Amino acid sequence: MASSIAVDAMGGDYGPEVTVPGTLSALTANPDTKFILVGDGDLVHEHLQRANQRESQRLRVIHTSEVVGMNESPAHAVRRKKDSSMRVAIDLVKSGEVAACVSAGNTGALMAIAHLMLRTFPGIHRPAIIGQIPTVNGHVNLLDLGANVECSSADLLQFGIMGSTFVKYMEDKPDPKVALLNIGVEDIKGNQTIKDASKLFQASTLNYQGYIEGDAIFSGEADVIVCDGFAGNIVIKTGAGVSKFIQNALRKELQKNFFRRLAALTVMPALKGVKSRIDPRVFNGAAMIGLQGTVIKSHGSADALAFSYALRQAVIDVRNEIPSKINQEVSAVAEAVS
Amino acid sequence: MASSIAVDAMGGDYGPEVTVPGTLSALTANPDTKFILVGDGDLVHEHLQRANQRESQRLRVIHTSEVVGMNESPAHAVRRKKDSSMRVAIDLVKSGEVAACVSAGNTGALMAIAHLMLRTFPGIHRPAIIGQIPTVNGHVNLLDLGANVECSSADLLQFGIMGSTFVKYMEDKPDPKVALLNIGVEDIKGNQTIKDASKLFQASTLNYQGYIEGDAIFSGEADVIVCDGFAGNIVIKTGAGVSKFIQNALRKELQKNFFRRLAALTVMPALKGVKSRIDPRVFNGAAMIGLQGTVIKSHGSADALAFSYALRQAVIDVRNEIPSKINQEVSAVAEAVS
Repeated sequence: MASSIAVDAMGGDYGPEVTVPGTLSALTANPDTKFILVGDGDLVHEHLQRANQRESQRLRVIHTSEVVGMNESPAHAVRRKKDSSMRVAIDLVKSGEVAACVSAGNTGALMAIAHLMLRTFPGIHRPAIIGQIPTVNGHVNLLDLGANVECSSADLLQFGIMGSTFVKYMEDKPDPKVALLNIGVEDIKGNQTIKDASKLFQASTLNYQGYIEGDAIFSGEADVIVCDGFAGNIVIKTGAGVSKFIQNALRKELQKNFFRRLAALTVMPALKGVKSRIDPRVFNGAAMIGLQGTVIKSHGSADALAFSYALRQAVIDVRNEIPSKINQEVSAVAEAVS
Repeated sequence: MASSIAVDAMGGDYGPEVTVPGTLSALTANPDTKFILVGDGDLVHEHLQRANQRESQRLRVIHTSEVVGMNESPAHAVRRKKDSSMRVAIDLVKSGEVAACVSAGNTGALMAIAHLMLRTFPGIHRPAIIGQIPTVNGHVNLLDLGANVECSSADLLQFGIMGSTFVKYMEDKPDPKVALLNIGVEDIKGNQTIKDASKLFQASTLNYQGYIEGDAIFSGEADVIVCDGFAGNIVIKTGAGVSKFIQNALRKELQKNFFRRLAALTVMPALKGVKSRIDPRVFNGAAMIGLQGTVIKSHGSADALAFSYALRQAVIDVRNEIPSKINQEVSAVAEAVS
């Protein structure tokens, strides 16, 4: 049976300008999936027309009158924006009309509305955000990326179980290697929460590899790295900052004079090779896991290509029934310890 | 008057093999400074001989019989290694025989011994580690880099005052821009400690710029960025990891085939230009501030060039009387609020 995905067409820095072409590209790439564009009807249709497209059996438009602002407080968005594209898209997941929703909107508001509407599965304390970053041999999954700024050791263990389940089914890896982010690999390193969490991980059935440091994140040693949302956000943003900094420095050096610009042409394929391996667009689409439904967060600054990758994540998530798999594994652990 | 600097010749991954040539290079670069190499006398003399050097009025050797291991617990190092090169080098600072000491040894042990022997100035809760990382327009100072994994908002404020004073005198900037590392720039972002700290920063006389996110660290917007030692360590190591990852990916792409290897030669000057801007060796040497004396920590994996940069930091620190300047500014703030 075909699955359906709701798209918050108004979310992100560019709204329908990006979400509509991104969805059209996903529509072509995923012939078994239906998409519902949720947002300002006129605007969405305008962007469909620009691409010479219209509504079809696989592509519907649902009109909404409100938009959650990128800097709006989550509490305000929850209370006041009942007809926002974000809220209505999540409502479609709740009612079962679609299997997933994707938004490039305000992360805090998306998490707050999704948490309120969809709820976590019984026994799951907090939903978490899991995303991918490039490594020397592919990518690694990191969670939490900012949903939970303060976490207990029990929260971190649950993130480990959810993250391991996510990777097991999304990437078909039977026993994902799980590591805890810390500021050293020796037992004495880190704060009390991390040390306590490490003991919980050791006692769990997870394929726990111990601590991992910031510089080893990109080594490909782990499949899942667990940390609180504060550290996760720092890793993601610091990584993006360094990457941009080096690429800009390289561009400047290569354009310094005529000879360098000429030489740069000869190494273009190599530069493109590197760029494609670290292209953040390819890694776009972080899943909010632990919820009773699939919600995928796209970068706010995503372009159409990046947005289509977030939609791709949703398709794979739905195909692998990630939410119910997470429910099963967390319940199994809860039963084992009770 | 000539100042003197003690060098823990045994510290780091390579010991005298690196510390001796590094010191000889600093000896040439700083004709007004005396150096004392502290460590296994035979070994140090052997490395001096290899470089056709010997003790002189400006270069002395003090023999010690013990070494603090790179993975030794700080508590063990404090209690059992009374004649270690690290301890004796710090002792020389305490007795006033030298103005500073530099070590590439075990960070935890160095901080523990330095804290125990030198003590912080009255009113300073905890020493912190401050270091430099490259930005688009030079570098930024970041603290704490790992001395304090859990910090109160008052600790963070004190790091701000110490960091601002450090930059004011080390870099001759009258009013350094200070920012707090956070996971967003809006008021509602972050944990309670960060939010409380932000209020303390706002009420202070610091040139406070508000929150800064991980990707803006490298933008050059701030002179000093304050965070706890956990986040600081994550930033430094993640940054180093991404930098290494991109450089390795670029090297691989450029060596993929004969034509690429040929083309790579033509862009070598540009690649070297980038590399020199982000060369971690140039930024080697983090200061342990708040102590009654200058202690500089070099990377354990430093080579002789990197180690000489750590020694350079010590020379500039001593010339600018950083410890007493920090004492003055912290006392002034304490008096103003009492």
